[in-house]
Amino acid sequence: MVLPADPAAPLEPAVPPASLDELEALARRLDEADPLSAARSRFELPPGVVYLDGNSLGALPAAVPDVVADVVRRQWGHDLITSWNVHDWWGAPARVGDRLGGLVGAAAGQVVVGDSTSVNLYKCYSAAARLRPGRHVVVTDPASFPTDLYVLASVAQAVGWQVVTASPPEVPAVLEAHPGQVALVSLSQVDYRTGEQWDLPGLTEKARAAGALTLWDLCHSAGVMPVDLDSHGVDLAVGCGYKYLNGGPGAPAFVYVRHGLQDQVVNPLSGWHGHATPFEFGPDYRPAPGIDRMRVGTPPLLSMLALEAALTAYDGLSIADVRAKSLSLTSLFLTCLEVLTPDVVVATPREPGRRGSQVALRHPHAEGVVRALIARGVVGDHRAPDVVRLGFAPLYLTHGDVVTASAALHEVLAGEEYLTSAQQPYGIVT
Amino acid sequence: MVLPADPAAPLEPAVPPASLDELEALARRLDEADPLSAARSRFELPPGVVYLDGNSLGALPAAVPDVVADVVRRQWGHDLITSWNVHDWWGAPARVGDRLGGLVGAAAGQVVVGDSTSVNLYKCYSAAARLRPGRHVVVTDPASFPTDLYVLASVAQAVGWQVVTASPPEVPAVLEAHPGQVALVSLSQVDYRTGEQWDLPGLTEKARAAGALTLWDLCHSAGVMPVDLDSHGVDLAVGCGYKYLNGGPGAPAFVYVRHGLQDQVVNPLSGWHGHATPFEFGPDYRPAPGIDRMRVGTPPLLSMLALEAALTAYDGLSIADVRAKSLSLTSLFLTCLEVLTPDVVVATPREPGRRGSQVALRHPHAEGVVRALIARGVVGDHRAPDVVRLGFAPLYLTHGDVVTASAALHEVLAGEEYLTSAQQPYGIVT
Repeated sequence: MVLPADPAAPLEPAVPPASLDELEALARRLDEADPLSAARSRFELPPGVVYLDGNSLGALPAAVPDVVADVVRRQWGHDLITSWNVHDWWGAPARVGDRLGGLVGAAAGQVVVGDSTSVNLYKCYSAAARLRPGRHVVVTDPASFPTDLYVLASVAQAVGWQVVTASPPEVPAVLEAHPGQVALVSLSQVDYRTGEQWDLPGLTEKARAAGALTLWDLCHSAGVMPVDLDSHGVDLAVGCGYKYLNGGPGAPAFVYVRHGLQDQVVNPLSGWHGHATPFEFGPDYRPAPGIDRMRVGTPPLLSMLALEAALTAYDGLSIADVRAKSLSLTSLFLTCLEVLTPDVVVATPREPGRRGSQVALRHPHAEGVVRALIARGVVGDHRAPDVVRLGFAPLYLTHGDVVTASAALHEVLAGEEYLTSAQQPYGIVT
Repeated sequence: MVLPADPAAPLEPAVPPASLDELEALARRLDEADPLSAARSRFELPPGVVYLDGNSLGALPAAVPDVVADVVRRQWGHDLITSWNVHDWWGAPARVGDRLGGLVGAAAGQVVVGDSTSVNLYKCYSAAARLRPGRHVVVTDPASFPTDLYVLASVAQAVGWQVVTASPPEVPAVLEAHPGQVALVSLSQVDYRTGEQWDLPGLTEKARAAGALTLWDLCHSAGVMPVDLDSHGVDLAVGCGYKYLNGGPGAPAFVYVRHGLQDQVVNPLSGWHGHATPFEFGPDYRPAPGIDRMRVGTPPLLSMLALEAALTAYDGLSIADVRAKSLSLTSLFLTCLEVLTPDVVVATPREPGRRGSQVALRHPHAEGVVRALIARGVVGDHRAPDVVRLGFAPLYLTHGDVVTASAALHEVLAGEEYLTSAQQPYGIVT
């Protein structure tokens, strides 16, 4: 599989560094040249911590606490019910959706925010089944995040779909093997465990040529790389708001339906917020025109407006610059591994174009490694059975952080700290 | 229909009051004797406002702002991903569910909080269809809140149900007319427009005798009256967290499944939070035992934990006392109407046992009346075409507020302020 060249290649030193000192010196040079260095001040990070879990829960943007306090005290506490109009709570799902859509290459009117990723997957799978009634095959990656598989299985059983699993590079062959039968290709742009990036443009094109719809899960790509939903002709997409988008724990998720498909889409979760004229309170459901029909019930506004505030951390930044910084961080980390821990097993591709924004390691004591790193102030996570996941959020991490984390990893592995780390207190103590 | 006598009848004066002065004097006596008077200090209310829309968005509990600030700054900002364990974010849906369940007569382990009411309705309708596969009729009230009807129509189409509509008192006749055919009776305990309370115990008993399941929507009853789900043998229930429960705008909703039914319930929204062993990240969905299988995706924690804090406003209060206060407020309001605005059309039953916690009026200029009341600092809402809804939240309203609102209504109607109120600014200005 050939991926398009990444427009922003990472900075590389003339002579490869060969020691911790040289890595630190390189990191300083890279940080000095970093066009995103000012973005770090848009986040509140605990002192002494290197946070490498922004792929699971993004850090707190500095703009959020005051906005949430205002939503609680003034909008809810003082303005009460009138806030639906006065502060346009009603418009928040589409307004935040448009702001978020800009980060994934969606023109306005194609993204709404609300519900969880799992619920949005259900909407999309169900809608896809109705959009391709004569086709009974759906193709997905068996390494998808489990909720994608679980929800798909539920819909497949209800609509009579056959689920065919294939690693993304094998999807074109599956399409050829089932001519005219594939209703939907459902994939993640970045693998949640390995951090491998799949070929969204190429696979979308292949699916379209076969008459199949595409549904992309952007949970691990939204906010850290160009996605360009519109220009690649993606049909449906979902993603969560609390990873690289930093919307806070359980921030509402988003759903994208391309303009050309919207008026044919049937949302099985036909709640009143998706109605064309909800305040007529009529007895029959009539879906709203456009993307609003993907709305369901009243969204959680504290969480929704926290996400809106969080997205201001992207103000004035280009996604191309964000991607360049992300690649610079993960490239430096891979270099650090070669120098400091050359025996560690890396599960993430070394080619920049095949990486998301995380580096995954395989280790038989993955949980122990993560706990030992946390005890040293380096926060990542693990996924059963043997994956250590380290996410590199380009808005708030420095190259210096990368070297600090690498040195900590070296100590953890060299001292076999993963064997005893379960006895240490779990949590961030600074 | 005969309803059981309400255990807590409202206080009534010996001689009916006949003027505003006498109403005010009565209100002072009632407030002095009010066992719930201290609960008002558990809320932050804008000065000069009488808030009669707690049936749409409950007022801000004083405990909430500090909890939310702590969740944002310490739990999210400082403890980051470790909060899932350290602050038991994972356990929040069941923990808050148990706390909330206590207010609706559900023993622990039968309520989880998450998603919206509309999404929870979808889970329940879908589950009910699988639980009664040989039956094809579902009975509901055509005056149900629209989202109940819309979501039911979606599920009914998918599973082949025939929807029969009937006002709750007519439901027993429908059960008799369709012997062995009714899968589910789906009703609201309190009508969202008129505020009429239906006979949950009697209708549940009738449905059970006919072999049908019951699903009760508690949006307008949870937190203001005894519901006693367990003792009445209700099968399924849903409700929202942001009305009388004061959880904040778009607070997550709840779903109840009685213990005896849980292991047979299939949640079509089979997200990973409902999995028996979610952190094994296995490929196949295996539902969690018990109520946890009604969970779906990551819940909005800022909103969820705001709701948890809000429920502390009920600490030490009995629902019987809450109901008694509610009836005292609505009874006084009906008395005020008789004295001050005797010509107004009341849509809510005058019998205490047939009332929820709101009084609805019918007026051809309903929206104008509400806007004119808001301009006078009395906040209610309207529902098309002609309903003025005034909700009486017993935790933070006084009898004095009731008389103030009644006097304002008198001025609005006598001065025909509803004809010009659309020109005034909308919102709470104090």
